[in-house]
Amino acid sequence: MSPDPVAVEEVVAEQVADLCVAAPAEGEKPKKEKKPKPQKEKKEKPAQGGGKELKKETQLGLSTKKADDFSKWYSELVVASELISYYDVSGCYILRPWAFSMWEVVQRWFDDNIKKLGVQNAYFPMFITEDVLNTEKDHVEGFAPEVAWVTRAGNSEMDKPIAIRPTSETVMYPYYAQWIRSHRDLPLRLNQWTNVVRWEFKYPTPFIRSREFLWQEGHTAFATQAEADTEVRQILDFYAGVYQELLAVPVTQGQKSDKEKFAGALYTTTVEAFIPDNGRGVQGATSHCLGQNFSKMFGIEFETEDHGKSHAWQNSWGLTTRSLGVMIMTHGDDKGLVLPPRVAPKQVVIIPIPKSSSAPEQVAAMFEQVVIIPILKSSSAPEQVAAMFEQVKAFKASLESSSVRVETDYRTNYTPGWKYNHWELRGVPIRMELGPKDMDNKTVVLARRDTGAKEFVPWDQVATRVPELLEQIQADMLAKAKARYDACVETVTTWDAFMAALNNKHMALAPWADEEEVEEDVKKRSATADAMGAKTLCIPFEQPPLPEGAVCFASGKPAKNWALWGRSY
Amino acid sequence: MSPDPVAVEEVVAEQVADLCVAAPAEGEKPKKEKKPKPQKEKKEKPAQGGGKELKKETQLGLSTKKADDFSKWYSELVVASELISYYDVSGCYILRPWAFSMWEVVQRWFDDNIKKLGVQNAYFPMFITEDVLNTEKDHVEGFAPEVAWVTRAGNSEMDKPIAIRPTSETVMYPYYAQWIRSHRDLPLRLNQWTNVVRWEFKYPTPFIRSREFLWQEGHTAFATQAEADTEVRQILDFYAGVYQELLAVPVTQGQKSDKEKFAGALYTTTVEAFIPDNGRGVQGATSHCLGQNFSKMFGIEFETEDHGKSHAWQNSWGLTTRSLGVMIMTHGDDKGLVLPPRVAPKQVVIIPIPKSSSAPEQVAAMFEQVVIIPILKSSSAPEQVAAMFEQVKAFKASLESSSVRVETDYRTNYTPGWKYNHWELRGVPIRMELGPKDMDNKTVVLARRDTGAKEFVPWDQVATRVPELLEQIQADMLAKAKARYDACVETVTTWDAFMAALNNKHMALAPWADEEEVEEDVKKRSATADAMGAKTLCIPFEQPPLPEGAVCFASGKPAKNWALWGRSY
Repeated sequence: MSPDPVAVEEVVAEQVADLCVAAPAEGEKPKKEKKPKPQKEKKEKPAQGGGKELKKETQLGLSTKKADDFSKWYSELVVASELISYYDVSGCYILRPWAFSMWEVVQRWFDDNIKKLGVQNAYFPMFITEDVLNTEKDHVEGFAPEVAWVTRAGNSEMDKPIAIRPTSETVMYPYYAQWIRSHRDLPLRLNQWTNVVRWEFKYPTPFIRSREFLWQEGHTAFATQAEADTEVRQILDFYAGVYQELLAVPVTQGQKSDKEKFAGALYTTTVEAFIPDNGRGVQGATSHCLGQNFSKMFGIEFETEDHGKSHAWQNSWGLTTRSLGVMIMTHGDDKGLVLPPRVAPKQVVIIPIPKSSSAPEQVAAMFEQVVIIPILKSSSAPEQVAAMFEQVKAFKASLESSSVRVETDYRTNYTPGWKYNHWELRGVPIRMELGPKDMDNKTVVLARRDTGAKEFVPWDQVATRVPELLEQIQADMLAKAKARYDACVETVTTWDAFMAALNNKHMALAPWADEEEVEEDVKKRSATADAMGAKTLCIPFEQPPLPEGAVCFASGKPAKNWALWGRSY
Repeated sequence: MSPDPVAVEEVVAEQVADLCVAAPAEGEKPKKEKKPKPQKEKKEKPAQGGGKELKKETQLGLSTKKADDFSKWYSELVVASELISYYDVSGCYILRPWAFSMWEVVQRWFDDNIKKLGVQNAYFPMFITEDVLNTEKDHVEGFAPEVAWVTRAGNSEMDKPIAIRPTSETVMYPYYAQWIRSHRDLPLRLNQWTNVVRWEFKYPTPFIRSREFLWQEGHTAFATQAEADTEVRQILDFYAGVYQELLAVPVTQGQKSDKEKFAGALYTTTVEAFIPDNGRGVQGATSHCLGQNFSKMFGIEFETEDHGKSHAWQNSWGLTTRSLGVMIMTHGDDKGLVLPPRVAPKQVVIIPIPKSSSAPEQVAAMFEQVVIIPILKSSSAPEQVAAMFEQVKAFKASLESSSVRVETDYRTNYTPGWKYNHWELRGVPIRMELGPKDMDNKTVVLARRDTGAKEFVPWDQVATRVPELLEQIQADMLAKAKARYDACVETVTTWDAFMAALNNKHMALAPWADEEEVEEDVKKRSATADAMGAKTLCIPFEQPPLPEGAVCFASGKPAKNWALWGRSY
């Protein structure tokens, strides 16, 4: 099932090389040693001792600018911001808490929504017998090259190898055939949140393309096509909601071409995102109507109200952790992550800025924090520091009671500047600063991560201003990304304009006769020495009017619709 | 990591044979056919048509009584109540929504609690290279016989096989070594909710012992043993909370003997449950202090506050879907599941009981329900049925606004009696009945699943009485199970009394000299022709006073403590 993190089309090797992250090559093994040390990561943590940190502060931040080398910037960013660690099995990544907690937000939101529709969660085994996997021919052909096989348990060879699910249609549907007997058993709507494995041999990219990834997969069965069609679009709206409402990433909703649809589906709908920086489309999530293809293969047949027999109409739909990668690429900047407030693990970081204290142990004991090491010449009295820290705690408690996710950074072995960089790298939407002057004036400074804008806010307005500002940031981030996205859609009607759009790192919205062989042909013809060929991203649901006599930009035949084309992940 | 769903000690074959469920034997494959049909399940759904249902109603319910053949009763129950479907890979089971939603309750409760402690969720890959898996010797020896190996991807043989995690110590700890440099990086407290694979060759049992199962595994690192010790017990308290507060299953908290502790741990703590019906102990969940064993092997070393070097103190702890199996075994009866309200997917089922309607289509249309088929001679006017259904909807809305999980059953092609049986089989704690007389009197009947007791409740008290009754049921179920549990603990001081307790399907609390070789010996000596040998379940934290001069019941040496012994899963 899609969204396919590892699109099936071949990719021009030079083009993807820039996406390659320094994971160990296939078959490369860590040396036999007592303490296996996976590939070293960028260390940002300074060693202990006041003076040393200051010297090492320059290590913070990214060495590459987003505009200079996008894929190097991305690879650096996901590690430096502690989202990802590279893992010693190639193409697999560790999702660290900073990343996983964003996935939890997405999960909760989507899960609540599908449950309101009547979908129930379940869990099916991850192992599939070879015979069952082979049941649906188109389907298995789509996945066979990427299937990982278990052939041994302990020291025993298995009689027959067992596959690890690349998706669960064939795992589930034999049981749907058992459970569905009558129209009264329909609809059957199940979902599961799982890991799946697609053993890609292409270059992996954190979040975007990995051999094991996390997702949800919904599998539903209905008595009629009308019901199935309706659900396909409801789910797609939720996917658009995840991207636009949570991740602040604009998407186009549409239908996949026959060439690009899911293996075995009747039709596939999709939300398509776009990365302006490298001119690549990204399939965001897909919602498929499987029609009766699988129900016929697996014998999912029911007695209708009028005592006839009918095969069920089925859908499947999936959203993966790829969504986080698209968000990171969309919003990140040269200072690091820029996280939309609704998914940010921490929405506000409060940084008290005392002058160094003359009696640090007293304050430290009071707050059970780490030992405070003087790093500035001038000093605040311990009582002043204590009052400041009390105020920070009060803000934290007050904001948390309004469900704002708050971090505090009392550490005194780092300078304020280092802390600013640190939390900017991690993408926290709002930084709240509280210094000695702010204590006198009873104000705080709120600094926005997305724009850098600062404002002074009186203490008694913090509890209302912060949630308001978070919503403002969320809206502004989407608006900004939407403006960039829209600027990347070029309406073209000729081959030359089409190629110019692609080479300008844009998408092309072009009249098309909807022919699979033309899509194949366009892909070949649009490949250049240093860029992959283009394909249809989708046929958008929102279609501009098609001018009378419009012809396909590529074949010259009478156009049937507008298709959105692009180079893509 | 434990809890080990597949205990390592050998089991007397005849004894476990009764646990065997009719899963396909290892290596047995479904026939090559177009429509793979997994093993047939008990069908409880009648075919359509009013008259037929009545004839088939006798199919509902269980053919085996709990007291007559416990394991057959259990195998039947988990399928008939739609918790489980057997799967065509031996030892793997499908968790259907009725089961999975209970797991979701457990997950939410435990996850909220550990997050309050400061634990964060993450996700580590499920694949492990052979070299890394082999790093900790005791550990790998404990798991090697059960490890599933991936050796092929698509059509390519891998250079080296890759293991699927049986637990994630060796997956995670190389990265802990990277992330932990200073005492400031501690504590590091991560958890993940995942599937794991232990390819057991013993007889599988749904929930209790399966080759793939779901769990959470927490992995934490501290600067000091004191902190690690504290957490071990905090987590164990949460585990006891899951069993006692959610699942209404009494447990004993204690420490495992050296023989029974987790492979590689310094010590293991456990919550131990007991199934009186077959006299078997069940390890409920375990919380391990790993000491510095793994940190030394994986080089997890940090700079201390006083600029020295130290290895981290580590814990790991796990709770699996086995917990649901223990709950089912504890509370289920001859009519089916009896679910504790706090985990029940539906806490109340409301069943309207109209007399059959003379104008069923009108009512059906009004409620968009299935067609109503007359099944009784006398009839209610359509207006009366509509009023009754309106009232059911009002109760549902009212109870749901108080977070009560409500099911309604408007189906009219089943008799009330059939519906009662159906929802009893599924274990719903309260059945609310609403018949024509209740409409007149403005009352409902509340029937308790656990005791069968019925009460009349005026409509205006339903919203307060139902939540109250649910809490009462929860408390009563725990109290009843606790009384049965306590009655199964026999305090013994001699070998003969010990054997008598075991053969009476009880646990034995016995003075012990805490010697591993004695435990081995007891196990051998206590095995009989038709029963496995006993082992220590735990050394309970709550120890009765040890009489002066007390000696080990088995070795006669001076006793060190009281140990709880039993035959066990």
